[in-house]
Amino acid sequence: MPDIEFTNAVDRALRKAVEQGGYAQVIVLTDHNTGRIVLPQVAGELPPFTHITIPAGEGHKTLDTVVQVWRELQQAGATRHAVMVNLGGGMVTDLGGFAAATYKRGIPFMNVPTTLLAAVDAAVGGKTGVDFGGLKNQVGVFAQAAATIISTRFFSTLPSEELLSGYAEMVKHALLGDAAALAHQLQGDPTRVDSYTLLDALRASVMVKHRIVEQDPLEQGPRKALNLGHTVGHALESLMLGRGTPVPHGIAVAWGLVAELVLSHMAWHFPSTTLHQVAHFVHDYYPSPTITCDHYDQLLALMRHDKKSRAGEINCTLLEAVGRPKLDCTIAPDDMRTALDIFRDLMGV
Amino acid sequence: MPDIEFTNAVDRALRKAVEQGGYAQVIVLTDHNTGRIVLPQVAGELPPFTHITIPAGEGHKTLDTVVQVWRELQQAGATRHAVMVNLGGGMVTDLGGFAAATYKRGIPFMNVPTTLLAAVDAAVGGKTGVDFGGLKNQVGVFAQAAATIISTRFFSTLPSEELLSGYAEMVKHALLGDAAALAHQLQGDPTRVDSYTLLDALRASVMVKHRIVEQDPLEQGPRKALNLGHTVGHALESLMLGRGTPVPHGIAVAWGLVAELVLSHMAWHFPSTTLHQVAHFVHDYYPSPTITCDHYDQLLALMRHDKKSRAGEINCTLLEAVGRPKLDCTIAPDDMRTALDIFRDLMGV
Repeated sequence: MPDIEFTNAVDRALRKAVEQGGYAQVIVLTDHNTGRIVLPQVAGELPPFTHITIPAGEGHKTLDTVVQVWRELQQAGATRHAVMVNLGGGMVTDLGGFAAATYKRGIPFMNVPTTLLAAVDAAVGGKTGVDFGGLKNQVGVFAQAAATIISTRFFSTLPSEELLSGYAEMVKHALLGDAAALAHQLQGDPTRVDSYTLLDALRASVMVKHRIVEQDPLEQGPRKALNLGHTVGHALESLMLGRGTPVPHGIAVAWGLVAELVLSHMAWHFPSTTLHQVAHFVHDYYPSPTITCDHYDQLLALMRHDKKSRAGEINCTLLEAVGRPKLDCTIAPDDMRTALDIFRDLMGV
Repeated sequence: MPDIEFTNAVDRALRKAVEQGGYAQVIVLTDHNTGRIVLPQVAGELPPFTHITIPAGEGHKTLDTVVQVWRELQQAGATRHAVMVNLGGGMVTDLGGFAAATYKRGIPFMNVPTTLLAAVDAAVGGKTGVDFGGLKNQVGVFAQAAATIISTRFFSTLPSEELLSGYAEMVKHALLGDAAALAHQLQGDPTRVDSYTLLDALRASVMVKHRIVEQDPLEQGPRKALNLGHTVGHALESLMLGRGTPVPHGIAVAWGLVAELVLSHMAWHFPSTTLHQVAHFVHDYYPSPTITCDHYDQLLALMRHDKKSRAGEINCTLLEAVGRPKLDCTIAPDDMRTALDIFRDLMGV
């Protein structure tokens, strides 16, 4: 499992990680934005390196971009003794991790996430990949970063939507962690960031994920806990995308968390006070999903086609209590409709 | 590590392996030749399956072919609960293993090699990949097959060059095994195949490789033993290819084994009687490399650019004795020239 370092002295931490690895060559991968804005802030202490720049945006998270990276690695004469540093948001760490893990059957890579969502989610856990044939992350591998350096120093320029998106995954981790972590998380205002407080919160949050991944890096069992909120979340995300009103991933996850806590209460007596605390938080800070009961059929169909489902059944990770996940719960369609009704009530839509 | 089964009742073994895995869906990957000739012989007992056919030949061991396989997996609605059976030579098992290991971050796959070289080499050990940017196996991952079914029943139609090629890897395994295995291997006539005797020999040979790979699946140490013969072998293979007179991989490996046993004798006192036994065997059954001392500079340059080399030095796996490899030996250029002189003497060129 990777070293994870939490620090805002990113330049020093990165130099140290690279030195300790004793690599023959350093490659830095950025997109056009992080190459221009972030790279100058962290490269100061690095030994001479090769810089590979890819186009920014989810639309470029494709095999064509991976081919570009492989070609530039080849042109730079990179061997298995080289290391690749992925500096950017989730698109850069997902794609860069995949390119490194498949070049010459795998060269080591490091992740330096520059967004809250990437710091709390994509950059840790070893899921790499690109979109293919219209589906997200359809091609990829599990491959752990040699090191991950997490900071809050690049977040001040992020739009508040991006912060909300990352914060939803932090609430999810707190729900999988313990009551104290959850209480702390729900006190914060996700749209106002204090770099240093947030770094502490991030450390606690990422370590919840890290501990779960350590038990089950290939997602064959316990790791499915991390799917909390994601069955309903993905369906809402796809519905919004299909209607031409896309929402950031984490915002859909926030909605999904509320709906799946309703299901958790129905199926496993998850405490209703905690459900209401989370629902209030999402209601107060997040936009509302514009759905009615007319969308239920479509949402249920989307849930049946989810990666997690098997044989057309709807599959969710639920909670019995904070920190006590129930994996592979099959949800009857009528129960899902009821949960969506209650969810809409809680969100006031 | 994978189950490896040695049997000529391939249809039954394959059916059993697929049943035991409890997969939701079966995909069979072949090239045009194995789809036509071999598939009808092994598919009889399989449950209904999806058949993906790719073009035959090393020239198609490319990313374009992998994209075709990913697309057809998607069209077939394959999930992580599907299994892919790779039925063919090394091109099919290498490419199919890579396509499976990267589809949805990895679905299980099985290998059913149909050539001697694939049975003894490509199908076991978890190296998957495709050629890229003019270099062999440049893109790939380490991924172990869920099961490998090894038989000799498809070899009777192989050209004798193909048998010689596979046999060279068997001699290599015997050199890494023990003296009895080596004596047995050198008694056989690699151009005449008796299916059942060969199946026993194959079992012994593959298990040598399997034991080494088990210790070190990612090639960070002990697995480098399997590079025996391959530094000089690859250089000769590339030289011949560059001259427009390509030789099968295993034939170049046979030459490489002789040259590297000479080096082993020079550096580590590898017994000269055994060196001469191997040299006689290769001399008697294999074609001779048409090289003179005028080719040495070019050969040394090729060796310096080998995947195994670091910082421009020539790196070989040598032997102190049968079964006792010495990894990461650096070879001085003058020693390599001397070894090539002796090698040419032994080959009579």
